[in-house]
Amino acid sequence: MNKVIYLKKRPEGKPQLSDFEIKEDQKPECGDGELLLETLYVSVDPYLRGRMRDEKSYIEPFKLDQPLESAVVAKVTESKNDDFNSGDYVMGMLQWKQIQTHSGKGLRKVDKDLAPLSAYLGVLGMTGLTAYFGLLDIGEPKEGETVLVSGAAGAVGSIVGQIAKIKGCKAIGIAGSDEKINLITEKFGFDSGINYSETDNMTAAIGNHAPDGVDVYFDNVGSYTLDAAMNNINRFGRVINCGAISLYNETEQPTGPRLETTIVKKSIKMQGFIVRNYEDRFEEGVQQLGKWLKEGKLKHEETIVDDFDQIPQAFIDLFDGKNKGKMVVKA
Amino acid sequence: MNKVIYLKKRPEGKPQLSDFEIKEDQKPECGDGELLLETLYVSVDPYLRGRMRDEKSYIEPFKLDQPLESAVVAKVTESKNDDFNSGDYVMGMLQWKQIQTHSGKGLRKVDKDLAPLSAYLGVLGMTGLTAYFGLLDIGEPKEGETVLVSGAAGAVGSIVGQIAKIKGCKAIGIAGSDEKINLITEKFGFDSGINYSETDNMTAAIGNHAPDGVDVYFDNVGSYTLDAAMNNINRFGRVINCGAISLYNETEQPTGPRLETTIVKKSIKMQGFIVRNYEDRFEEGVQQLGKWLKEGKLKHEETIVDDFDQIPQAFIDLFDGKNKGKMVVKA
Repeated sequence: MNKVIYLKKRPEGKPQLSDFEIKEDQKPECGDGELLLETLYVSVDPYLRGRMRDEKSYIEPFKLDQPLESAVVAKVTESKNDDFNSGDYVMGMLQWKQIQTHSGKGLRKVDKDLAPLSAYLGVLGMTGLTAYFGLLDIGEPKEGETVLVSGAAGAVGSIVGQIAKIKGCKAIGIAGSDEKINLITEKFGFDSGINYSETDNMTAAIGNHAPDGVDVYFDNVGSYTLDAAMNNINRFGRVINCGAISLYNETEQPTGPRLETTIVKKSIKMQGFIVRNYEDRFEEGVQQLGKWLKEGKLKHEETIVDDFDQIPQAFIDLFDGKNKGKMVVKA
Repeated sequence: MNKVIYLKKRPEGKPQLSDFEIKEDQKPECGDGELLLETLYVSVDPYLRGRMRDEKSYIEPFKLDQPLESAVVAKVTESKNDDFNSGDYVMGMLQWKQIQTHSGKGLRKVDKDLAPLSAYLGVLGMTGLTAYFGLLDIGEPKEGETVLVSGAAGAVGSIVGQIAKIKGCKAIGIAGSDEKINLITEKFGFDSGINYSETDNMTAAIGNHAPDGVDVYFDNVGSYTLDAAMNNINRFGRVINCGAISLYNETEQPTGPRLETTIVKKSIKMQGFIVRNYEDRFEEGVQQLGKWLKEGKLKHEETIVDDFDQIPQAFIDLFDGKNKGKMVVKA
C-alpha cells in the first residue's frame, strides 16, 4: 500500500494532528516519460503554514482533501524518462506520498557521496540557500559588523550565523533554550546567544550582547523580537525579513509599535524575500555552501524524525521549537 | 536691530507659538575671513520637529535658548573672505537671524538668473533632491509601474509625482483637500488623487485608483496611510520611507498592524533615508532637476509667507497642511 497525507482542515491557530489525514492508496504505475519515485526524506518548514491558509500569496494555497507537498529527497525506482535512471537520487517539490510518479520536470539530481542525502533538504537545500542569499544579498554584512539572528538554532539561522563568522562579523543568536544557546556558541561558533525564554527585556538583552549596536538583523520570527532588534539598530542597518514564525498561527491581525520613524531616522533598509527569488543563482549558492561544508567552515545540524506517519507531528513541533537545525522526516 | 528666533521650550505634541521667542540683538560685525549675510528666504520643514526633541538622532538636537536654524538663502552684504564677494547669493544651513556672520564653510553660491532664489530651498534644494534620490535610488521605478505618493501636494511629494511621470509611470497622489487634488492633477500632471480627509477606507480608495496594485510607495506621512498602501502593494514592491509627519507630534509610542508578514510574503523592500546620505551626488541631482525645470517638465509650487516674524507660525502650519508645495518665509 501507499500512504498519502492530505490536508483535511485548514488549521486555525496552531496546526493540530486532526487537520491532517493519512490515507492509503494503490501504488501508482509508471507511465511513458515518467519516473516512479520512492520518498526517502521529507522537509517540514514553517512557511508551509502559510500555504495552508486559503489566501493569495506568492505560492498557490494547498487545497483541502488534496495531498500536501514540500521539498523531498527521493530515489528513482523506475524510469521511463531518458533524463533519469533507476537508482538516481533526486530532490524537488514532491507530494507527501510514499511512492509517486513524476514527469521529472523541476527535479534535481543529488550526489549521495558529496553529502548525506538529508543535507539536500537543509544546508545544501532551500534553508541553506535562504541563509546564503538573504544574509549576503540583502544584508550585505561587512567585516567587523554585528549580525543578529533570531531562530538561531534553526535550519536557516544556524547557517546565517556561520556565514556571518566566515565574513568576519560578530554573530549573536537568539533562541529558546540554554541547550540551543550552547549549540550555537559551541558547535556553530556564534560569539554569544540570548535565551529569549529567560529574558524579560529583549531590548536590554540585545543591547548587552551588542554594545556597538546591530548592523544586520536576520529575522526569522517577527513580532516583539523584531521590535527589540530595531531598538538596537545602527544607522544604515539592514533587516532581512525572512520569516515571522511567531505570527504564522495568529488568527487576528497582530499589532505592535510603528517602526517607520526609526526606519526614516536611521536610514534603515527592511527587506523581505523568499528563496525562490534567487532561483537563477541557486547553483552558485550550492557550490559555495558545498565548498564551505567540505572545508569544515560550515557545520550543520539536523533533527531527523522517523517515519512517514510522523510528518504532521514534526511539522507541528516546529512551532514549539522542538527542532535543532533542520527538521527532516526519514520516510 | 537684528531679530533672532530662539527655541524657548521643547514642544509637546504639536508645536505652539509659545515654544519660540523672538529677541532683538545687536547687528554683528564682520570679522577677518568672515561674511556678513542678510537673510532673504527661510525654509521651514517637517524634519525640524525632530530636532526640537532632546534625543539622539542623525543630527544634533536644537538647544534650548539658542537660535534655531534651517536652510536659508541669503545675500552677502560684506565679505572679508576671498571665496565670496559682496552681492553674492548663497544658501546653506543658517540660523534664524536677520543678519549673521559666517565662515563661508558649507555655503553654496546660487544663480539668481537660473531660477528664482526661493527655488533653491525647494525644487533645486533639499526637498527636490529628497524626491529625486528617494524615488530613483530607492524606489527604482520602471516604466508602466504604479507610483503612489502621500503628502502629494507638498514640497517633496509634488516633485516625486512629476519625476514618476517623467519616468513613464502612473502617478497617484494622496493629499488633504480637493484643492490640493486639483493642484496635483491639473498643475503637476498626476494621473489621479485621493483626498484622504473625505475617505473612510483608504485601503479601498487606493485599490480603486491603483487596480493593478502599487509598485512604489513614497511615504511622507506614515501611520494608517502606510498601512493602506501596504494593503495594496505588489510583489517586489518598494516603499520609500521619507517621512512620517503624521507621527512627529505624537508623545507616546504609536502602534499599528505588524507589517512583517506582508514584507516577507511579497518580498517588499522598505527603506528609510535622509537626503544628506546622498551629499556626494547633490550636484548630479541639482543638474538634472534644473534641466527638467528648464525644459518645462517639472513645475513647482511655493507657499511664500511674508516676513521674518512669521517663521514659527509657518512652521506650525506645516502640520495642518496649510502649504501647497514648498513652504518658505520671505524675510
